[in-house]
Amino acid sequence: MEIACIAIDWGTSNRRGWALDAGGTVLERRGDDQGLLAVAAAGGNFAESLAAFAQGWLGAPVIMAGMVGSRAGWREAPYLETPARLADLAGSLITLPAVAGSEIRIVPGMAKRNRLQPDVMRGEECQLLGARLVRGIEDGLFLLPGTHAKWARVEAGRLVDFRTYMTGEIFGLMSRQGSLAQVVSGDSFDADAFQRGITRARETSAGGITHQLFGVRSLSLFGELTPANAGSYLSGLLIGTEMQDALSWARPARQVVAIGSAALLARYAAAAAFFDITLDRLESDAILPPALFALAKEAGLLRR
Amino acid sequence: MEIACIAIDWGTSNRRGWALDAGGTVLERRGDDQGLLAVAAAGGNFAESLAAFAQGWLGAPVIMAGMVGSRAGWREAPYLETPARLADLAGSLITLPAVAGSEIRIVPGMAKRNRLQPDVMRGEECQLLGARLVRGIEDGLFLLPGTHAKWARVEAGRLVDFRTYMTGEIFGLMSRQGSLAQVVSGDSFDADAFQRGITRARETSAGGITHQLFGVRSLSLFGELTPANAGSYLSGLLIGTEMQDALSWARPARQVVAIGSAALLARYAAAAAFFDITLDRLESDAILPPALFALAKEAGLLRR
Repeated sequence: MEIACIAIDWGTSNRRGWALDAGGTVLERRGDDQGLLAVAAAGGNFAESLAAFAQGWLGAPVIMAGMVGSRAGWREAPYLETPARLADLAGSLITLPAVAGSEIRIVPGMAKRNRLQPDVMRGEECQLLGARLVRGIEDGLFLLPGTHAKWARVEAGRLVDFRTYMTGEIFGLMSRQGSLAQVVSGDSFDADAFQRGITRARETSAGGITHQLFGVRSLSLFGELTPANAGSYLSGLLIGTEMQDALSWARPARQVVAIGSAALLARYAAAAAFFDITLDRLESDAILPPALFALAKEAGLLRR
Repeated sequence: MEIACIAIDWGTSNRRGWALDAGGTVLERRGDDQGLLAVAAAGGNFAESLAAFAQGWLGAPVIMAGMVGSRAGWREAPYLETPARLADLAGSLITLPAVAGSEIRIVPGMAKRNRLQPDVMRGEECQLLGARLVRGIEDGLFLLPGTHAKWARVEAGRLVDFRTYMTGEIFGLMSRQGSLAQVVSGDSFDADAFQRGITRARETSAGGITHQLFGVRSLSLFGELTPANAGSYLSGLLIGTEMQDALSWARPARQVVAIGSAALLARYAAAAAFFDITLDRLESDAILPPALFALAKEAGLLRR
């Protein structure tokens, strides 16, 4: 079967790639840990890294999204600024020199310019576009959990506003290093401890998250948390804090479209129940390839 | 001059020691980086580590405070529970086997038992006692900034309540690792950026700190922060968040007694101005030796 297009989500830590046929069907999927950090550590030769990753696929055009288009990536793709039509992404692709016969395009990220706190996304804009293409969602509140979780408002196919929360990165730093790492072990999910963390995060008189985080340690000291469930409590605190704030920003909302990995979506769905909202869950693996394919097609990039 | 008592503040990362005469005057001061972590990494021989640190001083009794009395320290000294009289510390010292002719005592920490979020301190209780001894402060709101900043309420010489904020540890993790470390360089203090961080932290509609932290990155991307001042903005966000919450917990307060290092106290004093409070600043180097000396004396420990 002939490959019509190669779609790649190239992030800071990982990358995923899909070989697609002329109808947009996924022929093959690949993933590895050669994100920006690894490529930079190996000397920063992105063309060589792509050639290795897409071996056997090349010749077909490549469309890429994610941090590969950032200043620390292969080439900076200037942001589209909100409010921006998701459909306008196709007209804003940047072009790189061909690699092994493959034309190369990078999708720009989107930015909210704001003097007090601007915000940026790279890769998530394609997921929003994918939800529109796959599910016909033109309006809604979106949640894209991850290292830097995004909450986004889309109206009539336009990204109008969004907010980033460092939930995943803070969880990673604090569960693996410093004084909380001493009382957290393992990744197993404990629903009860997670719920206790969320409940705690919602108590307005309970101090902010920088106080509540110390509770992971003090509750462990007094046997109220164990190494096996302290991580779930920590996760509940951080996701609860994020959701509490995001929903006060986005009210009224009863339904949120959440796009991400199945495991993370399950965790956020458990949290959502406490906030009286429901998550419409879409796995990003099913959303991103159609979005990148559509952009390639609209840009006239598909191999003829 | 004869040494009547050796006072040591032995923490997780560092330790400080003072040789005191029979009147409580400091004869000599020492400090190094052989905190609990370093001692544990070297095999966990606390007696040997003390003998090296206090070389030339030993023979005189030793009184120690701080994490050396925690479960991960030399020997666990059970907490006194709030509300607790600071004067009761003297009757609760624990005794360890003598080292090189020196009697050894450890001061217990203090704990607030609470099912939702207990809290603990080790070392700070001696600073509160020191403020009482040196300055006669029997009542007040105290701030003890550091890796784990404490806010404490003392009434009639009793510690009645306190809260820990992980401000210093979060600052350390995020300024040295992860995605914010890429935009933060150096430790220099920029008053304007610090003020902007505090102002941002006080905006109730501005999202919580887990959103605001991402602003360190996005403001840097758009040139609103530079590597030289982004760290001060980050510091302002975290100290502003702490102070906002602590003062809502402790209201009404106009005057706060702050005990710590001069550099950290200067930073908190700059923050306090935005919250319409004043800090009565006490350097812990001047507060802790008299407190430990008084405890040793009351416990009958001084070399006769």
